[in-house]
Amino acid sequence: MSLAVFGSVGLDDVETPAGSVQEVVGGSAVYFSLAASLFTGVRVAANVGGDFPESAWSVLRSRGADLSGLQVFSDRPTFRWSGRYEGDMNEAQTLKTELNVLAEAPVVPDSFGDARIVFLANMGPDTQLSLIERFGDAVVFADTMNLWIDTQRPALEKLLGLVYGFICNDAEARALTGEQNLIAAGQHLQAMGPDIVVIKKGEHGSFLFTREGRFGLPAYPTDQVVDPTGAGDSFAGGFLGSLAEHDSWSLDELRRSMVYGTVCASLTVESFSTSGLEQAGRMHLDKRFSALRDFVSF
Amino acid sequence: MSLAVFGSVGLDDVETPAGSVQEVVGGSAVYFSLAASLFTGVRVAANVGGDFPESAWSVLRSRGADLSGLQVFSDRPTFRWSGRYEGDMNEAQTLKTELNVLAEAPVVPDSFGDARIVFLANMGPDTQLSLIERFGDAVVFADTMNLWIDTQRPALEKLLGLVYGFICNDAEARALTGEQNLIAAGQHLQAMGPDIVVIKKGEHGSFLFTREGRFGLPAYPTDQVVDPTGAGDSFAGGFLGSLAEHDSWSLDELRRSMVYGTVCASLTVESFSTSGLEQAGRMHLDKRFSALRDFVSF
Repeated sequence: MSLAVFGSVGLDDVETPAGSVQEVVGGSAVYFSLAASLFTGVRVAANVGGDFPESAWSVLRSRGADLSGLQVFSDRPTFRWSGRYEGDMNEAQTLKTELNVLAEAPVVPDSFGDARIVFLANMGPDTQLSLIERFGDAVVFADTMNLWIDTQRPALEKLLGLVYGFICNDAEARALTGEQNLIAAGQHLQAMGPDIVVIKKGEHGSFLFTREGRFGLPAYPTDQVVDPTGAGDSFAGGFLGSLAEHDSWSLDELRRSMVYGTVCASLTVESFSTSGLEQAGRMHLDKRFSALRDFVSF
Repeated sequence: MSLAVFGSVGLDDVETPAGSVQEVVGGSAVYFSLAASLFTGVRVAANVGGDFPESAWSVLRSRGADLSGLQVFSDRPTFRWSGRYEGDMNEAQTLKTELNVLAEAPVVPDSFGDARIVFLANMGPDTQLSLIERFGDAVVFADTMNLWIDTQRPALEKLLGLVYGFICNDAEARALTGEQNLIAAGQHLQAMGPDIVVIKKGEHGSFLFTREGRFGLPAYPTDQVVDPTGAGDSFAGGFLGSLAEHDSWSLDELRRSMVYGTVCASLTVESFSTSGLEQAGRMHLDKRFSALRDFVSF
């Protein structure tokens, strides 16, 4: 079980043109691990309040995930996020954020020490830096958000110098580098440290930058985007889950894992909350993998 | 010489983050035919003022283009357009438009009667409809712009029922169909008539919709976007030029021609005005074709 994720567990209120839901299961660690668990065992670390439904973990348990990193605060509420999507749905308008148990530092169980790939989902870069120290031998990937780019840039730049891979969206890549052109932004991010940079572009797909070459992929061509929440973390989970499964960092394997990440994101956006990833099986993934290959082939 | 284009010849003032130029050669018919002429002979029809530099036609002449459809109004000025690009440069802010000789109807030389593929660049849909009547046996592709979607929708809808192919950008596809999701918008456009729909997405690439299948392609991964003016018409010229050269409408040929369109657009955006397409040769195109195949392969 070589893959570990540190991130959030949340209860989300979401409004999209397709409808709205209240207090549904969400959070970066949840989306990431549901996607990754389709490929490999995954260790999950996150803070959870007493109000989070225990039943939400059943699918991850059935897929063999290690949930010993869940730190439950039984008398405090779970992280809450509320957001709205309009128009092209590429960016959420955040209506409310309540950190609650997310204000506490995550725990690192001793059993996580054997993790060879670690994903640090969006959280304060100081917390990410303290976690990196615990995984000296692992390959670490990190995500971030515009809040930290605006308020904690020095810590974020230090983080970029230490991680093997960095996964962010187009707006974050532009804000971090000052480059409007995303190819230039990806190259600039690599120059800040990471060997591997992934830029997620929502409906426009994704770019991969490595020392050996680059890769570009459209999004999976779905005509039913119900709720984009969690798509980026689902992408990261599919991407790193596939890499952990195959235990290779070749450019070919990175490309194929980008496709699996894209497929996992497509399953997430087609319904509210986590039901797309919960209902999916490996055959679903492989069918979409083939469909996406056909979509881009010439 | 089976390909003909009807469009504009212009003198453009353009401001971008990379610099600014005044009264440079532009216009849809110019960009289109410079791209198409890299693949095939092309017949060009457009209205030109007396102030347009004769030297601008030398490259097209050297590539064997038929310029007998250029209608020169020696005592009147050429169409003028002035625009500015900012930020991600996906959309121009139009600062000034002077129709001048573009207010007159284009001419159709008798020699154009053998055209088997006709491209009607952006112009009033009534003019496009009158041109379609002259090419009953040809495969007709048309482009449009938001102005006509807003002001002449009935004529545009009639046009969509008559053309074989429709090429527009993402904003136009959304405005015409009311669909925010571009996959849904492409399907909706096909239901309005055309067998083939191409949606151009600027830096995000392009989608192709046919009765046999769909295709998605990222833009060519250039980190030097100097001026996007003419990229869409360069795309259309490369796409239809390649199709005219190979004289096939198979999905495989359409996919390869989308790639050549993408390559032609990339040559246009890397410098001001038409110099990218003027300096290019077939080896340039094939080198970028291979690079783009490598970029998207998995």
